[in-house]
Parts: sequence; C-alpha cells; structure tokens
Amino acid sequence: MSRVEDKIESLGLKLPDVVPPLAAYQPAVRSGNYVFTSGQLPMVDGALPATGKVGAEVGAEQAKELAGVCALNALAAVKSVTGDLDKIVRVVKVVGFVASAPDFTGQPGVINGASELLGEILGDKGVHARSAVGVAVLPVDAPVEVEIQVEIAD
Amino acid sequence: MSRVEDKIESLGLKLPDVVPPLAAYQPAVRSGNYVFTSGQLPMVDGALPATGKVGAEVGAEQAKELAGVCALNALAAVKSVTGDLDKIVRVVKVVGFVASAPDFTGQPGVINGASELLGEILGDKGVHARSAVGVAVLPVDAPVEVEIQVEIAD
Amino acid sequence: MSRVEDKIESLGLKLPDVVPPLAAYQPAVRSGNYVFTSGQLPMVDGALPATGKVGAEVGAEQAKELAGVCALNALAAVKSVTGDLDKIVRVVKVVGFVASAPDFTGQPGVINGASELLGEILGDKGVHARSAVGVAVLPVDAPVEVEIQVEIAD
Repeated sequence: MSRVEDKIESLGLKLPDVVPPLAAYQPAVRSGNYVFTSGQLPMVDGALPATGKVGAEVGAEQAKELAGVCALNALAAVKSVTGDLDKIVRVVKVVGFVASAPDFTGQPGVINGASELLGEILGDKGVHARSAVGVAVLPVDAPVEVEIQVEIAD
Repeated sequence: MSRVEDKIESLGLKLPDVVPPLAAYQPAVRSGNYVFTSGQLPMVDGALPATGKVGAEVGAEQAKELAGVCALNALAAVKSVTGDLDKIVRVVKVVGFVASAPDFTGQPGVINGASELLGEILGDKGVHARSAVGVAVLPVDAPVEVEIQVEIAD
Repeated sequence: MSRVEDKIESLGLKLPDVVPPLAAYQPAVRSGNYVFTSGQLPMVDGALPATGKVGAEVGAEQAKELAGVCALNALAAVKSVTGDLDKIVRVVKVVGFVASAPDFTGQPGVINGASELLGEILGDKGVHARSAVGVAVLPVDAPVEVEIQVEIAD
C-alpha cells in the first residue's frame, strides 16, 4: 500500500471507491503533470449524509466534516487516473463551493475541512492555493462541493 | 475545413463567430500547451435566447440546450487563438455555472448539454473533468455560463 | 524596484503586503511555470472597506473599485512566491466572484475593476481569459473575490 494511503488509514479514515460521475464526464483527467478532478460532492457509499444550505439546514461544523469527505473523494478521483497517490508532488489548487444561506459568511471555515485534511494526509505536499465561495445551490442539494488540481510526478 | 468543424456541421450545427467579450478581457488565452477560455454565455448572433434563473423563468431542458450553445461558443473561442480546432488534444476541464432558483438542484443535467456536445464533436478528446454549481445570478441575466480548458498540440 | 512595481506606484497605487489567508492554505502556489493565487478579498490593511451584496448594500461602482483592490492583493500574493513581479510572462486567467443581489446582472462591469487594473499595470501581459459570476455570499461578507493564474518565466 502506498505511504499516502497508509497515512489515510492511520487517521482512522479509508480511501473510498471513486464516486461515479452524475453525468457525462470523468472523475478526474490527467494532462501533462497535472490531474484535474471533477467537483466532488460529499458522497458516502453513494449517498449524501446531509442536504441543504449551510447556515440553514446544515450547520457549519457538519459542513466542515463534509468538506473533508469531498477531499477524500477527490483523492480517490486522483488515484483513479494515477493508480498511486504517492505520485502526488503537491496539491496546487482547491476550489470550494459552499451552498450557503444568504447570511452565512463562514465559507473559509467550512472549506478548512478539506484543506486541513489534505495537510494531515499529505504534509507539505498538501499545502495549496484556494478559493472558497458561497453559492446558491449545489447538485442534488449537496451542502458543499470541492475540486482540486494536483501536480504529479512523471 | 478541419475534421472537428466537419463533425460540427455533420451534427447540424455551425461553429459561431467568436463572441466578443463584454469587458476588458479576451475570449481565450493560450499559455504553453493549454487554451483557457473565458466564461461563455449562450449568445446566439449577439443575443441571449433566454434569460433568468433555471428552475424559475427557464426550464431545465432549455437550459441544457443553452449549455450546448455555450460549449460551441467556447470552441469558437479556442479557434480564435489556435486557428484550427484539430489542434485539440483533449478537453481537460469544464466548469459550468447555472443561475439557479434556490430549490433547483439539477445542475449536472444542465451542464450535460455542454459535456455531451463536446463528446459528440470531439469523441474521446472531449471527455473531461467537470464542476457544476448553482450560482445566484449571471452576467446579463444569462441562465448558464461555461468555461473550458483545453490541451492542444504544439 | 521592479518595473511592474514602478508602474503600480506611477498609477498612485501601492503594492500591499500579502493578505494572510483566513484559513489553512497559502496566498499563492507556484507549480511549474504557473502561479495560482488563492481567492483574494478586497482587504485593505486587514479590513474590508465594505461588506454586503452588490446591487443591494454595495453599489456597482464601489464594487468595481474593490475588484481592483482584489487584483492588487493578487499581485502581492504572486510576489510572495516569485519575489519579483517582473517574472510575470502573462496573466492567463482571472475568475471573479461577485456577491450579488438576485437581480444584479452587472458582474462583468464589476470585475472590469480587476481586469482593467491588470491591463494598466502589466500592459499586454495583463490581458487574460476571464469568468465572472454572481454568487450568493462570500467569506466574511465580502462583496467581491478574485483569483488569478499567472504564467511566469523560469
């Protein structure tokens, strides 16, 4: 098993199977030394643990946990095209979309659930640039969606 | 005429003229082996066929068609910097923004209008990673906006 | 001092200190010949000059100015990893998120505040592809957020 997957297990987590796309695209694409993942919803075993807007039906703490699930699903998507997560040189970019009640302004704290988990799993390789925004609504009423861009070794 | 443009015509479509930017930017930029397009609105001959939020003023099926128009406009933007769509190695990434009524959660189906058309036109080269999100409102009240990143040959 | 910073001063502006991230990420990351910045809020000396939605609490003209502040902060973020803004070969991509009242459709004009300033500062190197969208709400209730991707010399 790869060192990155070892680390995931040591955190008490499990790299999930890749989440099948909801539509006509792939979970991730490799181009040159980069892997671009599709936007990942916080699916667990094919279902969303919660739906609705953060700041209304979903609390900020729960949304932060769900952002971590998105990050794990993103790593599964990366593995689906690289075969091995140890090929990650670094996470370059994270974009986090938070389905937000109009007065919820804590998007950075929510997306920290993804950023911090990537840091725990990947160490210095997990430190990235990031945008976090509050959107009106997400596919299948998910509270959060995260996409990542990763640089990989040849 | 290029094979890709042949294919577009065989689908009963026409590659439009590039849509002039609404502001101080370019329809697309080439950098290295990539072309990044600006976010494309579903302009047809300089006008939007429909305006408003999907799930309210605009139906999901019409929005899906409009997402296909965005994809065609994106290919026109790519051509504006490459001169030839046959230089496309693959579509790497698609981001689709759907101006959404707060309870509309069918963004993946809408953006399929872009993804499926790219697949029909480009075959395996059209398969991409993708994010689809529901935003509050789009420029000039467009129902949908699509940007693409394409890898091209030297 | 670099030519780019000279130009910034000649416009009566000042390159700010890099804005510390609100969370577990970096202001910018270099990967290969690219720098990706995090989404930049219009922070001035650590505070937002205005908060709220554009088209409601914040006017379009003020939002355009704030988008320019975001662009300056983005250049500061680029400098934080390159050391020298003269290494910029070109701005490849700008994504602008405008926290928008549901009936505000002037996002392109707002994000022009970033695009035009990048053009004034960088000339031809500042011309970019761009997406502008209207989101529900932004971190700490900022009216606008801008991220950029820049190609740099070796």
